[in-house]
Amino acid sequence: MRAEIITIGDEILIGQIVDTNAAYIAQRLNAVGFVVSERSSVGDRAEQIVRSVEESIERSDVVITTGGLGPTKDDITKTTLAKMFGGGMRIDKRVEEHVREMLAARNIAFNELNRSQAMVPESCKVLFNAHGTAPGMWFEREGKVVISLPGVPFEMRHLMEDEVLPRLKERFDLRQIVHRTLITSGLAESMLAERIAEWEEALPEYLRLAYLPSPNIVRLRLSAYEVDGATVEQEIEQQFKKLEALIPAHIVGYEGATVQEMVHNMLIDGGKTLAVAESCTGGSISSKFTAMAGASAYFLCGVTAYANEAKRDLLGVDASLLEKYGAVSEQVARAMAEGVRRISGADYAVATTGIAGPTGGSPEKPVGTVWFAVASERGTEAMMRISGTDRGQIIDRATAYAIEMLYKELKRA
Amino acid sequence: MRAEIITIGDEILIGQIVDTNAAYIAQRLNAVGFVVSERSSVGDRAEQIVRSVEESIERSDVVITTGGLGPTKDDITKTTLAKMFGGGMRIDKRVEEHVREMLAARNIAFNELNRSQAMVPESCKVLFNAHGTAPGMWFEREGKVVISLPGVPFEMRHLMEDEVLPRLKERFDLRQIVHRTLITSGLAESMLAERIAEWEEALPEYLRLAYLPSPNIVRLRLSAYEVDGATVEQEIEQQFKKLEALIPAHIVGYEGATVQEMVHNMLIDGGKTLAVAESCTGGSISSKFTAMAGASAYFLCGVTAYANEAKRDLLGVDASLLEKYGAVSEQVARAMAEGVRRISGADYAVATTGIAGPTGGSPEKPVGTVWFAVASERGTEAMMRISGTDRGQIIDRATAYAIEMLYKELKRA
Repeated sequence: MRAEIITIGDEILIGQIVDTNAAYIAQRLNAVGFVVSERSSVGDRAEQIVRSVEESIERSDVVITTGGLGPTKDDITKTTLAKMFGGGMRIDKRVEEHVREMLAARNIAFNELNRSQAMVPESCKVLFNAHGTAPGMWFEREGKVVISLPGVPFEMRHLMEDEVLPRLKERFDLRQIVHRTLITSGLAESMLAERIAEWEEALPEYLRLAYLPSPNIVRLRLSAYEVDGATVEQEIEQQFKKLEALIPAHIVGYEGATVQEMVHNMLIDGGKTLAVAESCTGGSISSKFTAMAGASAYFLCGVTAYANEAKRDLLGVDASLLEKYGAVSEQVARAMAEGVRRISGADYAVATTGIAGPTGGSPEKPVGTVWFAVASERGTEAMMRISGTDRGQIIDRATAYAIEMLYKELKRA
Repeated sequence: MRAEIITIGDEILIGQIVDTNAAYIAQRLNAVGFVVSERSSVGDRAEQIVRSVEESIERSDVVITTGGLGPTKDDITKTTLAKMFGGGMRIDKRVEEHVREMLAARNIAFNELNRSQAMVPESCKVLFNAHGTAPGMWFEREGKVVISLPGVPFEMRHLMEDEVLPRLKERFDLRQIVHRTLITSGLAESMLAERIAEWEEALPEYLRLAYLPSPNIVRLRLSAYEVDGATVEQEIEQQFKKLEALIPAHIVGYEGATVQEMVHNMLIDGGKTLAVAESCTGGSISSKFTAMAGASAYFLCGVTAYANEAKRDLLGVDASLLEKYGAVSEQVARAMAEGVRRISGADYAVATTGIAGPTGGSPEKPVGTVWFAVASERGTEAMMRISGTDRGQIIDRATAYAIEMLYKELKRA
């Protein structure tokens, strides 16, 4: 079964927001067995919405749209779909009651615009939005389904889980889609491809291989569409075993799990704790860990010591080290990791200190220079990397390197 | 002039990555005067790439694609476009030399796959990629332009700035696109729309108004497409002045500037410093500030004190407060803000402590409860908010509330 996703809103076309809804919906559709064959984004214009929905229904079995369901004039998805599917509008009592209650809880008066949110096309089945004021809608035509969801990400997500996916699974006879990802590190994409060329050549027809490069990491994904899941999962497991024999030193993990998820699980399973000392990464490492549910089991503290005084006063980095070697140095990285480990009593500590730019570089320490250290009861390791030219990229890469260093240290334990 | 964006890659269709490239390209195209009328994403399949590029050229003057230019077998954009535009392939000496140099710098051997990256369609003009091994390509047909860029975000960005935009500005006679955004807070979307209905009604035809709601904030954007920029900017300024008279207490700022950018600029302009103490937001507030170039001028330190011991030992929060009121309380939020201000010597300090979930809630303090405090020489303010049901959403909202509270405090100064 094929599905397409259409995200609606001028803010997407002018680049004012990044479209995260499409990725989420795609993932969830894949998980239940839909092949997402295309995604598109159009503006808040009736003729564009109608054309793209018509084209997508032509090619696919299910079309999911998001956005354009707000109470204000610029939002026209509901009236546009109502016209497209024919019939009038009706008031939905349950939605009206719910909107009243939601507004009352926030001390907001119910007005005509809110009442308009309870108006729904007669041609649709209403998908109740427990977390917002705009309901979802489910239309059908000649065996094809068009679903309209609000653009607010968490409302959309709850509607997908609670209303859309259960109905789709019931409505369509779905086969399975299997994606498995293996994470390699330390081999550039071209070298990796050369090393595994014969293995790649011998893969069964129905398995598609993709290379996904990111800083210092290449993910290899095997995908099979609309198959018998259990059999294919076994086949992929066999194939990954063969691959492991070819590049044993370069496999860091499996699955869609990010390296921070692997560290998270290793710390929880091992009953160990973590502390973080950041300079150039500025809280990014801490926020990656604390974003994961359950982090409080091991995450004791993170210190973003941007100023030299903060490195000295909060982390106990010796002022003489800062003066002699500079803040971006092996000595200071080590002292930061050891310092945060000492003050927090954590089992593991990781530290970064570097130059994220755009200013602050020098010939000896160009922008992108970052020192890393990991401290544990086994002592302290340090390493340096120079990478990136852009502030955001340098912070992202340094965050990834630091978490990977921690991962390697945990694996050694 | 109209443009479309096509992002290519199975990883986008299965939702393995969020497509940030399309938003960036849309923004930059808008800035030079292109109306982005549609965006789409297709898989690494030749017939799909050809169909979507053909459809987009039909509708628009310029089509920009990203992705599918890597050295491995799953990447087929280059050969597909070469066939579509006719003619053979040739080796590009400058690209070859550059790939050799880039690999040598990373100690990677040059192999056949890398050589393939220097092969380019005879039908295209090569766009030199100084930051990566896959060159960009510029094709033309009947006055229309198709541009293919690599999918690695920072390589794509550099190519856009250095190669694509200057050529597009030269090639097309572009008019201007104006977007201006005003940020309101404290009024729900429906109330705001009611309050400004008459003003909205009286807007000139060519100005499009959009409402963009996010936690506690509604952005109002006025857009005008393909106009005389200077005149329209003046008109919008007049319109925003009228609006200010209608909702004076609810306007927090202008422009695409985020609230953290406004705080960033206010701190730099005022020569003031900042320290952050986080519990449930876990480093997210710190990382928002430190992501901005120039943050080191004011950002002294951030402490993510997750464990109670960290709140006590690092921030000097009295153990009796933690015991008596619990970590999620007004008293502890105040003590955290005052603590981090004291240990860092910062002018301003902001603190968060709350329950991000999914566990840890109670009837008195449900998941989503967050206490905030801002400390300055004028004393300490505190507030509480209960919002959100999902961990990521709770962290995002709490981060936004904390930064807005800081913004209000700075405005009062």
